[in-house]
Amino acid sequence: MGVAERIEQALMKHLQAVRGSSCAPGLDQAVQYAVFPGGARVRPKICLAVADACGEDQPAVTDAAAAAIEFLHCASLVHDDLPCFDDSPLRRGRPSVHQAFGEPLAVLAGDALIVLAFQTLVAGTRQAPERLASLIEIVSGSVGLPAGIVAGQAWECESDVNLADYQQSKTGSLFAAATAAGAAAAGVNAGPWRTLGERIGSAYQVVDDILDVAGDEASLGKPMHQDEARGHPSSVRELGLEGARKHFESIMAGVVATIPPCAGADRLEARIMEEASRFLPAALADNAA
Amino acid sequence: MGVAERIEQALMKHLQAVRGSSCAPGLDQAVQYAVFPGGARVRPKICLAVADACGEDQPAVTDAAAAAIEFLHCASLVHDDLPCFDDSPLRRGRPSVHQAFGEPLAVLAGDALIVLAFQTLVAGTRQAPERLASLIEIVSGSVGLPAGIVAGQAWECESDVNLADYQQSKTGSLFAAATAAGAAAAGVNAGPWRTLGERIGSAYQVVDDILDVAGDEASLGKPMHQDEARGHPSSVRELGLEGARKHFESIMAGVVATIPPCAGADRLEARIMEEASRFLPAALADNAA
Repeated sequence: MGVAERIEQALMKHLQAVRGSSCAPGLDQAVQYAVFPGGARVRPKICLAVADACGEDQPAVTDAAAAAIEFLHCASLVHDDLPCFDDSPLRRGRPSVHQAFGEPLAVLAGDALIVLAFQTLVAGTRQAPERLASLIEIVSGSVGLPAGIVAGQAWECESDVNLADYQQSKTGSLFAAATAAGAAAAGVNAGPWRTLGERIGSAYQVVDDILDVAGDEASLGKPMHQDEARGHPSSVRELGLEGARKHFESIMAGVVATIPPCAGADRLEARIMEEASRFLPAALADNAA
Repeated sequence: MGVAERIEQALMKHLQAVRGSSCAPGLDQAVQYAVFPGGARVRPKICLAVADACGEDQPAVTDAAAAAIEFLHCASLVHDDLPCFDDSPLRRGRPSVHQAFGEPLAVLAGDALIVLAFQTLVAGTRQAPERLASLIEIVSGSVGLPAGIVAGQAWECESDVNLADYQQSKTGSLFAAATAAGAAAAGVNAGPWRTLGERIGSAYQVVDDILDVAGDEASLGKPMHQDEARGHPSSVRELGLEGARKHFESIMAGVVATIPPCAGADRLEARIMEEASRFLPAALADNAA
């Protein structure tokens, strides 16, 4: 089974485990819609790649860690798209959750997906309960206070924002959780793995900023020029398009050096570089240069 | 230290643990505002009373369980008050969170409080990590899919609603978690303790329905006649005021019989009856009769 299929199966399994006839049908559908079909599933891919490099010995734990992180990512998209934030009518090329199901069910679907991340971690660690605490700590810290994605989103409500803090919380934290949780799922000390995720997250955020002004809407699957319209902090606004591209390259150049010593370091490096080459489409990289 | 003070200290300690200078100040304030000053803290009181009856041996674990449940309750109030749900301008006698801080920070404060519940459980079980899994399972199930409070709230978006299912999810589930988590925090099998919490939750919900039509706004601290205005399912709408009062009495009459065998059953019974007598003010009980 390939990585992409493994991720979809893990997501389906853990979502299926909490579905039930007692659930209001609208919420059940909204949650399904928020998760399937997905986007690039970048974070769970990174989580799986790190677990593999660390000598994964409990695949069910890795699956749960990867799925939990993706559920949290889906939750953040649903809430970010709400009228009181980005008011985005589109996501992944079709109506956003609040457009399709209404605002109340979008709020609740996001809430339910946050909780599902924790239901997934406890279900996935039944054979290795000693790994639960570190996974809960990593995953909850990446989304909550003081510096998780929810806290990052809150910087958009402030007038005085530090771009690095904002991007680190809003994007970097969940990428750092992806690498740290991959290590923790394999029973390895997660601490040294955070920096790698933070770096990848920084690179990813710069690309997101670039695509917002220089991508194309069809492949993005969401409206462009939103950072500009909303006055969000952005690498392109701060550095210009060419500056942002150079910033991306300098971040990526340092990524490999942040891989902690592990048995599968070479394989992991190859996967990260392969994934990174998909972040920024080649044509766009050339255009920007 | 009395029970009320113990609860406030546990809430303060666990909230303080996730505050940090890197957090956006608006979100930090909104979360504080959502938790302090609190309401009756009924759920954590029940949690502590059950842990005591079960021979509590790890007070830090009980504190974390009680605080986690109250954080989830606060989160549900913040999201329920949003314009897309009850659009409530008041809560606990002052502006609701979205009135005071705006809708974006209200959505995020609710999200952060959900996550805080899990941060609290992991922090509180460091000396008893073998109790973490059951607590996460109890607490996450009480708020998520398929039958937690989020799922209960989603029934308000459906045209065809079963009152018992709706009330069990929306109110009963967190009360059932309060009793179950109290037992689990004391290292006792939580399963037999759920029914007690469900019963108390049912009684509490009936009282809430009664107070919505026959209470007074000053002591409620929130607008009245909301169930009626919003067309929410309600015991009073279904049974009439007198019928609802009788329903409350019949539920309470059966509560004591659902206390599982435990060393402190007598003490627990006395506490539950004392707490119940505060649910429905005596004057109102007489008026209804």
